[in-house]
Amino acid sequence: MTGQERDHGGGIDAACARYGGSRIGWADLSTGINPHPYPIPSVPQEAWTALPDQTALAQLIAAARTCWNVPDGAAIMAASGASALIAQIPGLIAKGRVTIPGPTYNEHAAAFRAYGWEIADTGAAQAQVIVHPNNPDGRVWTTQSLPVPDADLTVIDESFCDTLPAQSLIAASKEKGTLVLKSFGKFWGLAGLRLGFAIGDPTLIARLRDRLGPWAVAGPALTIGAAALRDHAWAEQTRRRLTEDSARLDRLMQRAGADPLGGTTLFRLYRVEDAAAWQDRLARHHIWSRCFPYDAQWLRLGLPHTLHWPRLEAALA
Amino acid sequence: MTGQERDHGGGIDAACARYGGSRIGWADLSTGINPHPYPIPSVPQEAWTALPDQTALAQLIAAARTCWNVPDGAAIMAASGASALIAQIPGLIAKGRVTIPGPTYNEHAAAFRAYGWEIADTGAAQAQVIVHPNNPDGRVWTTQSLPVPDADLTVIDESFCDTLPAQSLIAASKEKGTLVLKSFGKFWGLAGLRLGFAIGDPTLIARLRDRLGPWAVAGPALTIGAAALRDHAWAEQTRRRLTEDSARLDRLMQRAGADPLGGTTLFRLYRVEDAAAWQDRLARHHIWSRCFPYDAQWLRLGLPHTLHWPRLEAALA
Repeated sequence: MTGQERDHGGGIDAACARYGGSRIGWADLSTGINPHPYPIPSVPQEAWTALPDQTALAQLIAAARTCWNVPDGAAIMAASGASALIAQIPGLIAKGRVTIPGPTYNEHAAAFRAYGWEIADTGAAQAQVIVHPNNPDGRVWTTQSLPVPDADLTVIDESFCDTLPAQSLIAASKEKGTLVLKSFGKFWGLAGLRLGFAIGDPTLIARLRDRLGPWAVAGPALTIGAAALRDHAWAEQTRRRLTEDSARLDRLMQRAGADPLGGTTLFRLYRVEDAAAWQDRLARHHIWSRCFPYDAQWLRLGLPHTLHWPRLEAALA
Repeated sequence: MTGQERDHGGGIDAACARYGGSRIGWADLSTGINPHPYPIPSVPQEAWTALPDQTALAQLIAAARTCWNVPDGAAIMAASGASALIAQIPGLIAKGRVTIPGPTYNEHAAAFRAYGWEIADTGAAQAQVIVHPNNPDGRVWTTQSLPVPDADLTVIDESFCDTLPAQSLIAASKEKGTLVLKSFGKFWGLAGLRLGFAIGDPTLIARLRDRLGPWAVAGPALTIGAAALRDHAWAEQTRRRLTEDSARLDRLMQRAGADPLGGTTLFRLYRVEDAAAWQDRLARHHIWSRCFPYDAQWLRLGLPHTLHWPRLEAALA
């Protein structure tokens, strides 16, 4: 099964085919992408035409170091999305056993499996992956609670951690064998841009960089990413908005009979009696949600765009 | 040495520091990128905000199949630049010996070396890479002239072949063990976009796709790439223009004492008495050219933008 075919929620094209309407008219709450993206600044023509520029890359990296308080001992690199990094990480050290506490984002296990690793949920291993906060339940980790204290390779996927910067484990990125992953698309709401970062052990980062080849990030992503990561006021304001909107969504869902289980302020997880029935009910209003193959009572919702709250309220009334 | 550090010409930032002026004011002829890019169509907001869309990807792939006459038996995939594919290809089969007739584009050898392959210029091998037409000398290949007729893996890098579509070896992409690479950035002049394709043996393409992970191509690249690959009239007109401009550049350089050695219509290779002296002479006029570490008499020039011909004429007068 290729990455494009694995379950990532989505499936909105199929939902449109079944329930009618066109994609643009639906409220897609099946993802964890901020519905109010960073406003795209103007992109200079050379960002499209020339090979991506070392100066622009250096500016992006500098903005990222400041934004995430990257410790001096850690190296940092940019890639065309965290997915591109996740796909390469299992090839960085000799294969063995990897502990990935689940349920969680399924690309990590898929990537390790493709490189011949044995995947486990708990127990001793050469490598471990934690998603912090976890997708879909929002579980947070500390460096003390890591499942494998002596792993040779530790991957801390902080794709959703910009909602909780104070809880970031970025300080661990200076430890040997550690990689912290950051995603740009989710919190900044620009998933189509393809931008992600690996931060950590300089030896591992050098190997990872070689594996991606030169010019891994597109020119427009360098420009837009640097502007966004420098805009700390926007990030602060966005965190407040996401917190308010998450609380509003929880209240609305609770009134409709769902039980909030957690999540992050970019997506909320609920327990309902029959998730498929809830998905159907919302879909009749052209709202797309996320169900999970492993739990028929779990329903995940991303945050609605301002324009879509009335529709959600009507669907749940 | 990482990809960013290998010699790819470029170095225009260093040239600005030495000869003065700012990057935007220089005529950068050190690359083989079309100076008159495909006009960027408007990019819908969702291309930036949503995860890249299966429908948009399917449209890009359909446009690519038609544009390059991809045979039915061959699979095709898109990536964020041909470089991303070149970096992964050596991991597709067990390592051994690879024949890469040189001098040529140096990322192929670097990628195979990183995966522990032995690199040779000629002779029997498990794998072979040809760049067709070759960079920098423009040498063209046929399926009869391949250096290793019985290789398990054959990579045909057609990054510059859109200048010579009638000579494309795309028909070979349906052969077992064969991959043909296509670059979008050079002929269409949008190198910052990061878009490239691998076409060939479905088994190899499936492995390559798994290695890149999901959402390998950015949303804007899907939209812009599909529009450009469908615009066959623009491609025809561009080929005529590049042919005329190459002939004009050859005449100008010959009058100044350089001897044309070939190339493609996206870059021209010249023999001069002292390439470093020529590079210096042009740089004084803020024109950047390409020298080669392995031949002190070779000078490569990309085609000037319309606005830069008078400057080149003045520099060579």
